[in-house]
Parts: sequence; structure tokens; C-alpha cells
Amino acid sequence: MADVPASILQGDLQDQHNAGYQSALGVTHTEIVTLPGISTQSGFRFENLQVSFQALGTLSPARDNAILVCHGLSGTAHVAGTDAQTGRPGWWDFHVGPGKAIDTDKFFVIGTNALGGCNGTTGPSSFNPTTGKPFGPDFPSVSIRDMVRVQAKLLDHLGVEKLFAVVGASMGGMQALGWAVDWPERVRICIPIASCAAHNAMQIALNEIGRRAIATDPNWNGGNYSKNQFPAHGLAVARMVGHVSYLSEQAMTRKFGRHRQPAGDALNQFSVESYLHHQGASFVKRFDPNSYLCLTRAIDEFDLFENSSPEEVLRRVSARFLVISFSTDWLYPPTQSRELVRLLKRAGRAATYINLESDYGHDSFLIENPPFADVLRHFLNGEHASKPRRPAASVFADGI
Amino acid sequence: MADVPASILQGDLQDQHNAGYQSALGVTHTEIVTLPGISTQSGFRFENLQVSFQALGTLSPARDNAILVCHGLSGTAHVAGTDAQTGRPGWWDFHVGPGKAIDTDKFFVIGTNALGGCNGTTGPSSFNPTTGKPFGPDFPSVSIRDMVRVQAKLLDHLGVEKLFAVVGASMGGMQALGWAVDWPERVRICIPIASCAAHNAMQIALNEIGRRAIATDPNWNGGNYSKNQFPAHGLAVARMVGHVSYLSEQAMTRKFGRHRQPAGDALNQFSVESYLHHQGASFVKRFDPNSYLCLTRAIDEFDLFENSSPEEVLRRVSARFLVISFSTDWLYPPTQSRELVRLLKRAGRAATYINLESDYGHDSFLIENPPFADVLRHFLNGEHASKPRRPAASVFADGI
Repeated sequence: MADVPASILQGDLQDQHNAGYQSALGVTHTEIVTLPGISTQSGFRFENLQVSFQALGTLSPARDNAILVCHGLSGTAHVAGTDAQTGRPGWWDFHVGPGKAIDTDKFFVIGTNALGGCNGTTGPSSFNPTTGKPFGPDFPSVSIRDMVRVQAKLLDHLGVEKLFAVVGASMGGMQALGWAVDWPERVRICIPIASCAAHNAMQIALNEIGRRAIATDPNWNGGNYSKNQFPAHGLAVARMVGHVSYLSEQAMTRKFGRHRQPAGDALNQFSVESYLHHQGASFVKRFDPNSYLCLTRAIDEFDLFENSSPEEVLRRVSARFLVISFSTDWLYPPTQSRELVRLLKRAGRAATYINLESDYGHDSFLIENPPFADVLRHFLNGEHASKPRRPAASVFADGI
Repeated sequence: MADVPASILQGDLQDQHNAGYQSALGVTHTEIVTLPGISTQSGFRFENLQVSFQALGTLSPARDNAILVCHGLSGTAHVAGTDAQTGRPGWWDFHVGPGKAIDTDKFFVIGTNALGGCNGTTGPSSFNPTTGKPFGPDFPSVSIRDMVRVQAKLLDHLGVEKLFAVVGASMGGMQALGWAVDWPERVRICIPIASCAAHNAMQIALNEIGRRAIATDPNWNGGNYSKNQFPAHGLAVARMVGHVSYLSEQAMTRKFGRHRQPAGDALNQFSVESYLHHQGASFVKRFDPNSYLCLTRAIDEFDLFENSSPEEVLRRVSARFLVISFSTDWLYPPTQSRELVRLLKRAGRAATYINLESDYGHDSFLIENPPFADVLRHFLNGEHASKPRRPAASVFADGI
């Protein structure tokens, strides 16, 4: 595999300017709409909700070509194209656009910011209509399933009754699974990538370190911080933990090795340290600590099979699945995807599983990654061409 | 493998009381001696040094049965036996004692706290004779090789000219390697366990998250903290990161799974969270933040082959090596031990390599672990029985 540019290892395209990078989509826009509210699983009633979204491509007359793209922890509705204001490409511009894996010439692609986030959709930093102040720490506990219900309201608004596909990686993969289970009649294809049906203890532990760093920052103040007294240090440490978990040892060794900072001091000797500091600092500028707690808690709480057996849960699913994992992803290890596929098969569901060899760890889905793009493209195009449903495909790249 | 008791997963035996655990050695003592100082690699001159150590067993009349045990990041000189004051067993009591893997009926076992630590040997919390105050952040940068030189002074004091073996895990494994290279005439056997010849970018990154958490704690104050204004939150987060890296996903899943706290609140839902909080809090009571920075920096800076080629460095080594790694250790992955052995073999050195199957990650060397104990015991006893040196053994458990 060719050497990876520095910018790519930063994972999120929105983290940097990507000088010279040109989106094939040109300038794109995100919109914010006010939609009817929901009652959360925790019992809170939102009378209405602000929802940030981006729509790319054209909805077919039969309204059967919509693909919902669900982002990971820190993503936004800005999936692809160049943002008019920032000049930055969307976080999945490598894979969404004309002729790309998710082809906007064929599909109507919808990106949307998750409930509880901080990029346009209602979250802890939004104004609470009851108090006229931001929700802050009073924002209710929300779940992955709540996020899905808000997305369903958005589809209603856009006139999309049934999704051709729901695609999501990491936290977004959990949403994709929630879609398939909660709205079986509205999903034709479900593609969870580098994700799982429920966090294990290690995944919870990694999230908790980040939460703890934030909640012990003296500016945390129980979540009632201000711009001037902001728990920046805690949020930066949380992001540093996250970032290390997104990368593989191989990718870090290749990129940083034991290279030193040219002007390193006692607190900043190695290039990898400087890189992590930069990641922490840039995240602080764009993310809300209450959202960090809210979203990581939703991720940790998610358990697709919480209330009944896997077989019972998956029996009501009708979507066809493409489950993708990456060989060096230690945050969402392939074992979890494999187990999910085993359960899908046991419940008689149509599931294709690919464990892609990749050196780039969890971030393999974010980078320019032709084998990954090929798998996505072929699966989507194959299903798109075969309007009458074929029998279930059962390709198991690693022999399951 | 049998289910592991909660206490064992806490890794360090000194972290808890271990009710009911009886050391076969009974009560043991650690001593502190004042030894002639050294000049550090960074150019600082210690006129003299306090060195904490523990001696177990009896030095043979020929003075040829001494084993130096080097601890990991947070260990102490108290290797085995029950501490008279705390009633706690030493950190390696499972493996050091009469009839144990490192048999105190046969060997004269020396434990000693590392230079830069905070458990008896001179470190940042020690008094600086020049100022009459603790060194604090003015403690000089020390290296793994400096730690080894201080250990050599201790051996001089104890009348041990040549070690039968130097054994160390993690940071202690680096010291063992330093011994073999810097004092070839004083080491017969070198046993680095779950360690490496130099940290890679991932290992540096994990340490840096901890350092960053400490150095951004508002009580850090450039390292000039007091007991009343102590960077406890930062140190606790650092320990949480460390702890997760010491455990395997398998061990955490088995022990904690998705179990919930009986009285969990919004910041403490899952048992694994509570466990990590406890680990952080208990570490804060026994460790010094300046030492944390000092030792992790020494670990990150260590590079056995920094100044010359591996072949040149290893050509001057005369020790026989037993290199041990653990299959689920993701902090010090087996690939690093394997590479070390490859370099030893290429340089014509006698090296035995065992990659032990174990579910317990990096902490596999700390827990009750019969296969690990057997490997240690057989190697040491075999070498002990064969006073005239045999030809090099070359057993490679995983086929290298």
C-alpha cells in the first residue's frame, strides 16, 4: 500500500484544510429544518427538533434510491462536497460523489447530524425552549434508537418512505443496525461498518477515560461551563484517547516511528506527541463536551439484543446486510462483526461479510481506500441493478 | 483457564489487601541505603543516592546465585513476602519465594526501586541536597541506562560481582536489556518479559496521553504541586489509560462484560467504569506525578540500538537470553519480542523465545500463571544445574 499522506492519518477530513484536495461535487450545503419532536427512550419529550442534513444527488421518481449515511462520534451532516463557508470537504468525500462508491449520479444521499451532537441537530448546546438557555447538562439521556427515530422524521420530511440503504460506520453502524430492527419495512439494505451490536467492557472503558478526563476538568462545573471557562484540557485528552484507538500500531509506526520534534521540549519530544496535541486542540474548537458525554453514553448503552434474544430481534428484520470490518481495527475488532454475521445467519437473514485487510485501524473507512470503496460500490450497484430481490447472497471473505 | 479473582485483574498485588492471601515467605523487609552517586546520561551529577532494596534468600559462598528483579512502571523494591507495615504481599509474590519459579531456596533475589521512582530510591519527590527541598520538576532527566547504573552500585554494595540472572517485565525488561549490553561481564542470563528494545509510536502515544492528563491538571503547576494542591485528577486519568492498556479485551469481557453498577449514576453506569475509577483513585495515593512523567519519559526515550546497529550492540553481549511475551499483550505485542530475538540470533547470541498463550494481556506476568511460572522455573533451574556453560539453547516456541 502506498504511503499515506499526513492529512489522511488525521482521520477526519474536516480536521484540516486539505490544500489541493478538490471535491468532485463542488460546493455543497447543509440545511437545518425544524421537525416534529419525539419522546426519548428515557422519557423526555422534545416538542420539536432542529435537524441538520445534507441531500446529494436526485431522488428518483419512484423514490427508491435514497441512501442514508450515518456518521461516527464526531461527524456532521456534511458528508461530501466542499463546504461553502469553510472550504473543507465533507467527512466522507472520498467515498460519496459522482462515480464514487456511493454514487450520487445514481443515489439520493442523505447525511444528517445525530441527535445529541453539536453540529446543527438538537443537542446539549441547543437552546432549551422551556428555559431559553442551552440545555447543557440538563439535556436528556438519548439513545442510538432515539437518533434513528429523528432520522425517520427527516425521511418523512424528505418524502422518503423506504431507504434503498442505510450505511454507517462506528456509531453510525449502530444506527444502521437500529434502523434494520426498528423500521424493517423502511430499509432494503443495511451496511454497518467497523461497528458492533453492543460495546464490550474494553470499548466502554476507553470511552469512560474520555468522559472522566472531561468531568474532572475544573472548568467542567457539572456541565455548566462557558466559552471562557471551558473544559478544554479534559476534552483534548478525551480526543487523544479516541484518536489513538482509531489508529493502528502499523499506521502510527509508519507515519511517526520514533521521529522527534525539531524543537521539542520536555513535554513534547516525539512527533506523535505533537500530532496528538494538535488533534486534541483542533477538536476542542469544534466539539461540545456535553455532546461528547451524551454521545459516548448513547454508544455505550446501545445493545441491539438488550430486551430479547438475538434470534427474536433479527427475525423481524427484512434488510439484506453487508457487514464490513477491518483487519487492524482494535477499537471495533473483526470478531464483533463476525459474531453479528453469525447471529444474522442463524436467524436466516441475508448477510454478506467482508473483513478487509487494511493497515489503518478503525480509521480505514475514513481514508482513501480503494478495496473498501470497491466492496461498497459493487454491493450497492449489484443490489441497485437487481430490482426484483434475488436470493440472499452469502459471501464470506474470511471463510465464515 | 479458571475464572480470575477480581483482585488479580487489578494487576498489582500492592493495590489491594488480598484478604486471605498468605505469602510463603512470611514478613519481609525493604531497606534503604545511601550509595555513591552517578552522573546521568543527561549530565546531572548525583553526589550520592538513596536506594531502596529487598534481598531474599541467601547469597551462595561462590556469590553466583544472585537474581536481580526489575519492576515495571509502578512497582517497588518489595518483590515478595508480606510487608511488615502494610500487611500486603510483594508485587511478584506469585513468582518469587521458596519453591516458586524464582526459588528463594536456591537464589539470592534482589528487588530494588528504580531511580526516578517514588518508593524509596531517589526520585523527584526526594530532597535535593543542594536546595533542601524536594527536586520536584527540577529532577534531572534520567534514563533506563541510568537506572541500571544505580542497580550496579547496589550490587557492589551487596558484594555481587556477577548476576546469575537479571529478570524484568515491561520497564524492567528494558533494564534487563540495558544490563546485558552495558555490563556484559556481570550478567549470565537476561530475561526480558513483555518488553521491547524501544517504544514504537503507539506506546509513546499511550504514555503521552497520561503525561498530558497530568500536565494539564490545574494543580500541576509546572510540577510544583503540594499535597493539598495535587494533580490527582490528571494522575488518575493517566492510570486509567495505563490500566486499560495492561488488560486484554478478553479478560475485561470475562470480568466485567456489560455488568452495571448497582447504584450507578449518570457518570458511573457500568462496573468497568467503577473499576477504573477505583484504580485511578488508589494510584493517586501511592504515586508521585513527577515520577510518572520521569519514568514514562525514560521508557519512551529508551532505545537499545540508538547509537549503533543492532549487530554491533549485541555483539558485545555475553548473556544467554530467555525472551517471553504474551499472546494478548497489545501494549508490548509479541512482534516486538520476536524481532528482538531475531536480532539476537542474527548476532549469534543464545536466545530462547516463548510466546505464551494467555488471556490476560500485559498483566499476564503479574498474575498467578502456572505456564509462565513453569517456563521461568525450568529455564532458571536448568541453567543453575549446568554450571559449565552448555552450547546455546535455541528453543522457539512459535517456530521462529
